[in-house]
Amino acid sequence: MGLDAPTAKPHERLATALATELTAVDALIRQRMSSEHAPRIPEVTAHLIEAGGKRVRPMLTLAAARMCGYEGEDHTKLAATVEFIHTATLLHDDVVDESDRRRGRPTANLLWDNKSSVLVGDYLFARSFQLMVETGSLRVLDILANASATISEGEVLQLTAAQNLSTGPETYLKVVRGKTAALFSAAAEVGGVIAGAPEPLVRALWTYGDALGIAFQMVDDLLDWTDGDTIGKNTGDDFRERKLTLPMIHAVAAASIEERTFWTRTIEKGDQREGDVARARELLERHGALEEVRKEALGWADRAKDALREAPEGELRDMLHDLADYVVARIS
Amino acid sequence: MGLDAPTAKPHERLATALATELTAVDALIRQRMSSEHAPRIPEVTAHLIEAGGKRVRPMLTLAAARMCGYEGEDHTKLAATVEFIHTATLLHDDVVDESDRRRGRPTANLLWDNKSSVLVGDYLFARSFQLMVETGSLRVLDILANASATISEGEVLQLTAAQNLSTGPETYLKVVRGKTAALFSAAAEVGGVIAGAPEPLVRALWTYGDALGIAFQMVDDLLDWTDGDTIGKNTGDDFRERKLTLPMIHAVAAASIEERTFWTRTIEKGDQREGDVARARELLERHGALEEVRKEALGWADRAKDALREAPEGELRDMLHDLADYVVARIS
Repeated sequence: MGLDAPTAKPHERLATALATELTAVDALIRQRMSSEHAPRIPEVTAHLIEAGGKRVRPMLTLAAARMCGYEGEDHTKLAATVEFIHTATLLHDDVVDESDRRRGRPTANLLWDNKSSVLVGDYLFARSFQLMVETGSLRVLDILANASATISEGEVLQLTAAQNLSTGPETYLKVVRGKTAALFSAAAEVGGVIAGAPEPLVRALWTYGDALGIAFQMVDDLLDWTDGDTIGKNTGDDFRERKLTLPMIHAVAAASIEERTFWTRTIEKGDQREGDVARARELLERHGALEEVRKEALGWADRAKDALREAPEGELRDMLHDLADYVVARIS
Repeated sequence: MGLDAPTAKPHERLATALATELTAVDALIRQRMSSEHAPRIPEVTAHLIEAGGKRVRPMLTLAAARMCGYEGEDHTKLAATVEFIHTATLLHDDVVDESDRRRGRPTANLLWDNKSSVLVGDYLFARSFQLMVETGSLRVLDILANASATISEGEVLQLTAAQNLSTGPETYLKVVRGKTAALFSAAAEVGGVIAGAPEPLVRALWTYGDALGIAFQMVDDLLDWTDGDTIGKNTGDDFRERKLTLPMIHAVAAASIEERTFWTRTIEKGDQREGDVARARELLERHGALEEVRKEALGWADRAKDALREAPEGELRDMLHDLADYVVARIS
């Protein structure tokens, strides 16, 4: 049974359908990671890039371009661009403050120090910038420049919003659009633009990526509460890190006065004690917060699938459709 | 006596000659720093940008464009771009590791934490990217993409080279071209490009910025040893931070076996004791290292001035000429 058999997962089937292009993207990534002047750079990035991620973002670019009839080769440059940007943001997310270490935050950057994470991340941003300039498309550059600004605005907004109990669903959505959905939507959109797709289709690709990214992040925030054992993480990591996600935002909105005191102590003041995670979980269930987020995530996956109606029928469209289902499969 | 009197400093005379454009640049910077979604951003950046820096980099862009006969307004966007990139690199330089704190490195980021420095720096990079895309010049984008890669390669190279006694003058030059000269040269070059200057003049502007930047950094590295009291810093800060600069590189190259043991202990192993700074200073003088660097810096200032022969005669060329002298004035 090959990877393209019907039981293969959607991202695996996409990888099979796009195998030639993904090989070209990998070659480009390896080539552009190398640095004559600073040999330490590939050493740091190889760890992240070759860690066997699902490569969903670059596949969105490749699939969108091919689905829109693109026959050139610049889509591989854009796919590599998108992967570089993603890797750079991972490296910058790894930068921690001493206070974070004290709170027991899992430090992804144990292998390298803060300084390397920042500077190598900057190098990858610069490399991605060079790659997109090579496509010669000002519209692509405009889209990716705007996505970059949205990403960093979302990350900065999260810094202030995460421990603030007045953070509502709208602010959560802004953060998620920044830290996750902006790169998904730009990845799909530039695929359509490089292929010269008509405007309604370009907009539909943006909508697909945006909705897929939001569903993806909501599932992640939900699984943090329900799926601790299976992925090597503890339940309630976001709570421990004092990071308000949508389930907690809903529970805070519905909180009694006494419950609000609990959230103020644990999230705003960071005074967490034995049994607090279980208490938080119980409050989420009491107010139906997990079920509410589950429905919202499914709704965003539906919006992603709806957007694909604008796209040409075919194997790639079907796979992108199934990818939206797959993103929410673990909560369906 | 006005600021444009002959006794005013060259950067002050440039600021007077470019006053209208600098006002436009300032307005653009303030406008683009603002963030509807993340109000914390201008709060962090205003401190840096409005701290009254000399704005040498944006003035290079404005002066180069005007000297080449430019009459449009995109040079102000590029000048703001250059200042944003400079500010972003300052923010990222502020990121420190716990080990750095322990070594007593002066922490410029006491006001904000590592995470804010990284993310707000990323935001400024993204904003600069948007501004340059607005000029619609792919050549400008190419120059600034390459400069960004050179900058971050230089910074990463410094991480590994700074505490390695086998670092020679060539590696030092690569680091300096990255961390300092690449933005000076790109700033001057894009001014010429946006003005549609002929190729030899564009190349000359690059050479001017490159040489000016190298002279600037060499003076900085020299003053670290000779000028401690007047700028509120201690003599030998680079030594304390185990950062090999050109004066130390020359002294290491000329070191006796016993002197080399000293450098290995203090720089490579970081075991520094009372009296070591004075000892290091004495070794620099014994081998004429400070005088050697002084001559090299003056040589780079001369190269900068030579490059200007390609430029149209006039007030702006004279000011850029005097700026090269001014950069090395404190060591002349």
